[in-house]
Amino acid sequence: MPEPTLMDKLVSLAKRRGFVFQSSEVYGGLGSVWDYGPLGVELKRNVKDRWWRAMVHAGGDIEGNRAATRMPPRVREASGHVSGFTDPLVDCRTCKARFRADKLADARCAQKPSKAPGEHSTCDLTEPRLFNLMFKTFMGPVEEQAAVVYLRPETAQGIYVNYLNVLNASRQKVPFGIAQIGKAFRNEITPGNFIFRTREFEQMEMQFFVKPGTDEEWFEQWRELRMQWHRDVGLTPSKLRWHQHGPGELAHYAKAAYDIEYEFPFGWQEIEGVHNRTDFDLGRHQEYSGKKLEYFDQLNNERYLPYVVETSAGADRVTLTLLADAYREETVEGELRVVLGFHPTIAPIKAAVLPLTKKDGLPEVAERLYHDLRRTVPAFYDDGGAIGRRYRRQDEVGTPWCLTVDHDTLQDRTVTVRERDAMTQVRIGIDQVPAWIAERLGAA
Amino acid sequence: MPEPTLMDKLVSLAKRRGFVFQSSEVYGGLGSVWDYGPLGVELKRNVKDRWWRAMVHAGGDIEGNRAATRMPPRVREASGHVSGFTDPLVDCRTCKARFRADKLADARCAQKPSKAPGEHSTCDLTEPRLFNLMFKTFMGPVEEQAAVVYLRPETAQGIYVNYLNVLNASRQKVPFGIAQIGKAFRNEITPGNFIFRTREFEQMEMQFFVKPGTDEEWFEQWRELRMQWHRDVGLTPSKLRWHQHGPGELAHYAKAAYDIEYEFPFGWQEIEGVHNRTDFDLGRHQEYSGKKLEYFDQLNNERYLPYVVETSAGADRVTLTLLADAYREETVEGELRVVLGFHPTIAPIKAAVLPLTKKDGLPEVAERLYHDLRRTVPAFYDDGGAIGRRYRRQDEVGTPWCLTVDHDTLQDRTVTVRERDAMTQVRIGIDQVPAWIAERLGAA
Repeated sequence: MPEPTLMDKLVSLAKRRGFVFQSSEVYGGLGSVWDYGPLGVELKRNVKDRWWRAMVHAGGDIEGNRAATRMPPRVREASGHVSGFTDPLVDCRTCKARFRADKLADARCAQKPSKAPGEHSTCDLTEPRLFNLMFKTFMGPVEEQAAVVYLRPETAQGIYVNYLNVLNASRQKVPFGIAQIGKAFRNEITPGNFIFRTREFEQMEMQFFVKPGTDEEWFEQWRELRMQWHRDVGLTPSKLRWHQHGPGELAHYAKAAYDIEYEFPFGWQEIEGVHNRTDFDLGRHQEYSGKKLEYFDQLNNERYLPYVVETSAGADRVTLTLLADAYREETVEGELRVVLGFHPTIAPIKAAVLPLTKKDGLPEVAERLYHDLRRTVPAFYDDGGAIGRRYRRQDEVGTPWCLTVDHDTLQDRTVTVRERDAMTQVRIGIDQVPAWIAERLGAA
Repeated sequence: MPEPTLMDKLVSLAKRRGFVFQSSEVYGGLGSVWDYGPLGVELKRNVKDRWWRAMVHAGGDIEGNRAATRMPPRVREASGHVSGFTDPLVDCRTCKARFRADKLADARCAQKPSKAPGEHSTCDLTEPRLFNLMFKTFMGPVEEQAAVVYLRPETAQGIYVNYLNVLNASRQKVPFGIAQIGKAFRNEITPGNFIFRTREFEQMEMQFFVKPGTDEEWFEQWRELRMQWHRDVGLTPSKLRWHQHGPGELAHYAKAAYDIEYEFPFGWQEIEGVHNRTDFDLGRHQEYSGKKLEYFDQLNNERYLPYVVETSAGADRVTLTLLADAYREETVEGELRVVLGFHPTIAPIKAAVLPLTKKDGLPEVAERLYHDLRRTVPAFYDDGGAIGRRYRRQDEVGTPWCLTVDHDTLQDRTVTVRERDAMTQVRIGIDQVPAWIAERLGAA
């Protein structure tokens, strides 16, 4: 049997410890759709919360917004998704399989798995046809063309159509931004790599509206800020890099585009894009809606359509990146130790309370500490098995601090705090524990 | 012109101040779908955060979960949604309008708006036909029957299908719960009342798994806890009541059901349901998936299918309830004062920083305080217009505290804290402000 890869180990740990489950697994699963378990929900919640605080709460020049997942079809005509959001597909007339024409070399023929489709005589491929990646549904009681509504393939348009309403309600002035976290849906033909490319996923997008001519300066500033954000959540700097889109790669709306890439076990892949979208989108919405979307600059008495610098990250991809980056194996005293070395603010569980034994009144003291802690941070209680094994269980899910209640605790009201990475131990007063943890989370 | 109703005022304030916008308004809107603006996003975020902390973080016996919005069609056959999640509809052959057969008396004929459909001679109604409320879409490249996938009409099934995975990963024991916040989609024929009934909405659901025979006791306990939660977020107790489902109202899965109702301007309406679902759902999923879903109680060496007590609230409905409950008009010194009297933990903006004048160095001091504050809480800065007018603008969006920086501030480093409801003012040290606010939010 081949050695399991890092991705195999991550998928297995994710299921066993409750980060990510295959969706509807008891029914055999749904292709490339995943559910988050208890620890995965907290991890992703921390990612989104940290992004929201950094983008919306900290600065003052970015407003939040949350549009519905469905919009009138005309919005998707304006954005170019109805005509242009397509993949080229080919069918094999022999085995009825379907492939992306631009990824044929990476695909495998069902009848001869050692070959790519088209590489042997029984393959009979059609000409490529364009296939739209948007899911459609029907709103209202009749399934007729007029009622077709698309599930959004990205969240950005939900910001553009609300730009005037947000501007007026918030009394912001250009330059300012609008941020949004929300689901997007794409009918991907070849999804894969666990939660990296899925058919429904959450985006964290921000559109920053600037005066034309200042867009390149803002573009550079946002590139810097976003790369710093990924470093600040604890990603290994040497595994982060920029990829600049060449002329052939640039999307129809972009004047310049850079991807932040991370070195996954399956190669360098995009985790966030920073795009100079010019006034393409506002211009199109102005044309298609017939409404004026210009900004009036009172100070300089001028009117213009703002340019937009977009930062677009995937919450699921960032979550996967954090899992992959945090995973490490060490040998400690001759035994394998698996650690998820999460940054403390990202860790799903902040502290575990462990009574050394199940008797002598230790559980009562430990439980009281545990319930105190839960008022402010997600905490865990574990009284089962040897203390070393309990430490390992917490290491494996990335809990930064283990608090051990022992017989000394009954005498001097102190507990042992054991740190995940260095495995060092210090003794602190049991009443100081919540403040001790809050201080470290606040400074982090 | 008739006097605007409370709902008219709320919808208008919600748009003007950035709580809720009609979805894709520049394109004429999408029926009964709404977008959240800057303040609405924060308000709803606070609702969900408070629910999550109360249900998942505080207790220790409830785990989080987040399932995808789409599941294999077999899940919806098991849950009864494919065959039973229907409304009876009638068509009018004359005017082509469509109505809910069970709500005909409340509907209006397009040709004679003073009459209900069927009340005059030119109406020609068909027999009622059952219409399924689930939205369907097609996964994969071909629109064929095999690829039909439903957008979930509720989030509960996403918990049932993950119940074994969560149980194993979390090492919980029955009784325990699984909580989830997520979108649900219903193709409602007669949606309405602003964000009360919409075609996509967010649910906050918790399924509590208990030993059969203890279900009635747990049902009573969850009823109490959930009613208390609504009182704790500040809803007027006299506007909350229970509605017990009679035998004719009970859903097919329920042994007992109570709704928490709130007295909206448009009448008493459900904002949360507490249901004793017995082992109906797990039993159905066991039957339809062919997988054993029994719980093994090691201590008593017995095996059983747990009963489920469900608490199901709508995040959008709770948000609307908070808006409606918070709205009040007062006459202060001969002028109308509009206040959203939000509980401080729910208020979208916690504090506004107001320099008394735009000169003498006051803006610099105020801006520093504002940026300090934003590190921990959402704050707002306003230097425009008379101080009284600025207070009113904050009252109207429910900001609990206004911090005024004046000339005394330059001398003694104190600011005026003006409280929203009583309009009382106290003077505190400028460096104490963040702690002063944190203390009040923590105790609330």
